[in-house]
Amino acid sequence: MVRRIKRKPVEELEHLVDSVLTPHNPPIACVKPGEVVEIETWSALTKVTNPVTGPVEIEGAEPGDTLSVEIVGIELPSEGKTAIIPGFGALEGWLRLMERRMKTCEIKDGVIFYQKDGGGTLKIEADPFIGTIGVSPEFEAINTLSPGRHGGNMDCPDVRPGNRLMLPVLRPGALFGLGDVHAVQGDGEVCGVAVEVDAVVTLKSDLEKGRKIDWPRVESPDEFMTIGSARPLEDAARIAFREMVDWMAHDYGWEREDAYMFLSLAARARIAQIVDPLYTVVVKLHKRYLGR
Amino acid sequence: MVRRIKRKPVEELEHLVDSVLTPHNPPIACVKPGEVVEIETWSALTKVTNPVTGPVEIEGAEPGDTLSVEIVGIELPSEGKTAIIPGFGALEGWLRLMERRMKTCEIKDGVIFYQKDGGGTLKIEADPFIGTIGVSPEFEAINTLSPGRHGGNMDCPDVRPGNRLMLPVLRPGALFGLGDVHAVQGDGEVCGVAVEVDAVVTLKSDLEKGRKIDWPRVESPDEFMTIGSARPLEDAARIAFREMVDWMAHDYGWEREDAYMFLSLAARARIAQIVDPLYTVVVKLHKRYLGR
Amino acid sequence: MVRRIKRKPVEELEHLVDSVLTPHNPPIACVKPGEVVEIETWSALTKVTNPVTGPVEIEGAEPGDTLSVEIVGIELPSEGKTAIIPGFGALEGWLRLMERRMKTCEIKDGVIFYQKDGGGTLKIEADPFIGTIGVSPEFEAINTLSPGRHGGNMDCPDVRPGNRLMLPVLRPGALFGLGDVHAVQGDGEVCGVAVEVDAVVTLKSDLEKGRKIDWPRVESPDEFMTIGSARPLEDAARIAFREMVDWMAHDYGWEREDAYMFLSLAARARIAQIVDPLYTVVVKLHKRYLGR
Amino acid sequence: MVRRIKRKPVEELEHLVDSVLTPHNPPIACVKPGEVVEIETWSALTKVTNPVTGPVEIEGAEPGDTLSVEIVGIELPSEGKTAIIPGFGALEGWLRLMERRMKTCEIKDGVIFYQKDGGGTLKIEADPFIGTIGVSPEFEAINTLSPGRHGGNMDCPDVRPGNRLMLPVLRPGALFGLGDVHAVQGDGEVCGVAVEVDAVVTLKSDLEKGRKIDWPRVESPDEFMTIGSARPLEDAARIAFREMVDWMAHDYGWEREDAYMFLSLAARARIAQIVDPLYTVVVKLHKRYLGR
Repeated sequence: MVRRIKRKPVEELEHLVDSVLTPHNPPIACVKPGEVVEIETWSALTKVTNPVTGPVEIEGAEPGDTLSVEIVGIELPSEGKTAIIPGFGALEGWLRLMERRMKTCEIKDGVIFYQKDGGGTLKIEADPFIGTIGVSPEFEAINTLSPGRHGGNMDCPDVRPGNRLMLPVLRPGALFGLGDVHAVQGDGEVCGVAVEVDAVVTLKSDLEKGRKIDWPRVESPDEFMTIGSARPLEDAARIAFREMVDWMAHDYGWEREDAYMFLSLAARARIAQIVDPLYTVVVKLHKRYLGR
Repeated sequence: MVRRIKRKPVEELEHLVDSVLTPHNPPIACVKPGEVVEIETWSALTKVTNPVTGPVEIEGAEPGDTLSVEIVGIELPSEGKTAIIPGFGALEGWLRLMERRMKTCEIKDGVIFYQKDGGGTLKIEADPFIGTIGVSPEFEAINTLSPGRHGGNMDCPDVRPGNRLMLPVLRPGALFGLGDVHAVQGDGEVCGVAVEVDAVVTLKSDLEKGRKIDWPRVESPDEFMTIGSARPLEDAARIAFREMVDWMAHDYGWEREDAYMFLSLAARARIAQIVDPLYTVVVKLHKRYLGR
Repeated sequence: MVRRIKRKPVEELEHLVDSVLTPHNPPIACVKPGEVVEIETWSALTKVTNPVTGPVEIEGAEPGDTLSVEIVGIELPSEGKTAIIPGFGALEGWLRLMERRMKTCEIKDGVIFYQKDGGGTLKIEADPFIGTIGVSPEFEAINTLSPGRHGGNMDCPDVRPGNRLMLPVLRPGALFGLGDVHAVQGDGEVCGVAVEVDAVVTLKSDLEKGRKIDWPRVESPDEFMTIGSARPLEDAARIAFREMVDWMAHDYGWEREDAYMFLSLAARARIAQIVDPLYTVVVKLHKRYLGR
Repeated sequence: MVRRIKRKPVEELEHLVDSVLTPHNPPIACVKPGEVVEIETWSALTKVTNPVTGPVEIEGAEPGDTLSVEIVGIELPSEGKTAIIPGFGALEGWLRLMERRMKTCEIKDGVIFYQKDGGGTLKIEADPFIGTIGVSPEFEAINTLSPGRHGGNMDCPDVRPGNRLMLPVLRPGALFGLGDVHAVQGDGEVCGVAVEVDAVVTLKSDLEKGRKIDWPRVESPDEFMTIGSARPLEDAARIAFREMVDWMAHDYGWEREDAYMFLSLAARARIAQIVDPLYTVVVKLHKRYLGR
């Protein structure tokens, strides 16, 4: 039977502990490499901002290793919430939002029901993923609203069941935390909010000892992906492309200039979000091109 | 039989005429709304930088109309060229390119053959599109290297056969020009060059009289798309999202705030290029969501 | 007696001719290197947007030369206008401007009188300069609202009497134009408008044959300055700093890395404007540091 | 006699404690509002990156108050160090730095002696200031390399003797820390390093109870200043201008639109630095304009 890591009761959540990824927090659980666990997560729209469940320690993880997190499954609740929030979102200055609005969306059989203003319901296929997942930074306490080298609030729809996320281990034990599951999200997460849910996530965590990466990566059955976060957005893209060149060079023997030319013909680049403290871009390359 | 608009002989190309979109150039042909024409185009790697074939006048086009260009087909040659160029490309400062390199790629039966350094050939499926297509601006002469409201060097792979590009008419006759066909391109066009080809493009040009748009749009069989170009890249994305909100509001009766919330759940956003004088983002929405 | 180059009558101004810098316009006057001329300029708030007086041909100017323009004097009228314009300005999305407002400021004895809302008058010392001055680009027609390598709408208060502006010659005859005199402007020109005036500018134009520069430069009695224009703003600053390193290396024998270290201790950097199509930064270095 | 707050011995410095501003660190001293203290600071080029001395608790400080820090004096040592560091600095990609270089500069009688490559010494007038000074954030541990709302690594030369810095209190006791004194710095701190020194700083700390500010401010004898930090650089400028508008509106009764128009005529805007995780701009307005 799979071990379940419970989230804190909502009344115990506090920003100082639950809205940061940091080496200051003691682990709430320790898992062995290769172990499958279920982790309960809070919605980003909870009492405190974007709380994460964690830190979870990975036995034997050391700085310089890579933490591998296979997303085995995500169990969605029967509803989620979305919102617009004045002062937040990519078009805020243009739309001149005056007040916060929230909508509740029913979720049933993998479909999300969106109630349109003025009547009518639109159905969106659920495509759940983990919005915030990251390791502890070396010495900072990073706000869970921010993405970065450590992962964090990447809001990247590719961190989804069937895929494997890789994160650099920066502290002994890795000390990862997660939350902010989205039942579905558009690229860019343009108003700043997706369909936000409490969830139960099943993960298989593993270690790649001695493999050092600089930024988060994802492997899907068909593709390799690199994730960069920065402002302005082109710098996020440059980081992700640079990381892909390095990956091709280091693991697949490409000349860097050749990899660069080739990505200009064959890469895919998706905007994950343009609303968080750093913006996030995912660059993808089909595995078919990486056979030696 | 379809009329063919010929490109200039290469020895007659000059920057002052062929590397700009401008009302200063006299039309080389006039087509009727609804007419199908073939247009010969030059590769961007020709004697002058990124030459366009044009201006082509659309009979009856007036500022405030929308020019509709259906891309019926693109005829590729048997080879294309790609390159890296010091001083150009998104990773130039990092890779520290010292010299220009060019590769010739064979194109056969819809497949592009890329010769990898150190041996081996990679096959990429051709996905040809028009890299540069735009109308004359109101009074400037805009370098064909730059995208903008007028279209131009958007390097957007969605301007492809089967899709329909919409451009705002800014001068009587629209005066559009095109060139820079790519046999295939990765998102971001990261090194600044795709598989560059001379080509013959078949277009059906039409007018939507009295329909005013502010930025280029694309319609595919399944999706509506808006294209924004700006620096930094997030501003390109903001333009494209804003245009999509306006489209939903104006043509499909959405409340703008509702459209904004919905795009945050259902939009797709692709980086077209991060190498030209302005950067380009495409935002997409599936048509299934736009029935009234 | 100084020759005077008249501006066009206002009713003859048109965007296609007067709101661009371009080789397409025939010169309205030809001056000899070293000649002093008076040039009448239009305010940016005239019938057409930001009209320039020109093109003025410099006898013997060839691409690869540097045009030197000493600003001998600026004659101000007895009033100027300032404005806020919805959709324009650096804080537009935050202030949510609903309508255009214009204020007229009396100018007398070198002082500008600003009428504060609610009563009271504030006196600002006039510090007039040329907001828009540039040469013809090689083959484009650049909107006079935009700055660039060619000069243009730099809105740089250092282009003022007593200083000398240097511009790269890109077309035979240089073909420069100017307008948009400001009686005074704050750094950043934050609302997008300064105290805009019609004016008469006295210039001494000269040539530095065979001296090639890439971006505009200014020399004051005490300082050397480089001007960069780009988006985002840090790229404008990078251009200006890079140009200063090149200047120090090329004309004063500095090692580039040494110049870089030294500027990190001794440069001044002012934001000229953050409201035009490209943003502008001026980097300054005191001449005392450049003796060999 | 003035109390002196000692810095830690160098061998005890550690990133986890000394390279962050955070509520997790216990105060090393408590001072009363109005008290003058001397604080020893470490150079940014010490064993750990940019260590700060602190946290110093201000008796009675509560979130919503403003911490006022008058810089009474800075005692410089007899030498400082400057450096270029591959991978760091605003022109790194262009200059293609291959190795770290460091220079030692003698400091004597308020003059800094810079040894030019190839011989010769340049004298720069010392203009010492505190590069990094900030309060504890509400719940994060912010890297001392980063500036922000809390102050931090603003690298703003206006935080100098004779001026008064205002910071928002975000945690009880304010918990401020400081370090990174620069004997002199150019605007932009373009290579990423100034003349870095160990120093002794004399401060008079005070509280403005119940006065809430959102970002750091400075008062000099003649000017009011607001400091914004963000990427891209224009966003830092927008923050600083917005804060100045708010200051004028809140404390001096200006209409916001009027303040906006006026700043467009009378503000000064300096680039403090373009090398840290967020970039910093200072906007200044002469006090003469703010009499009621």
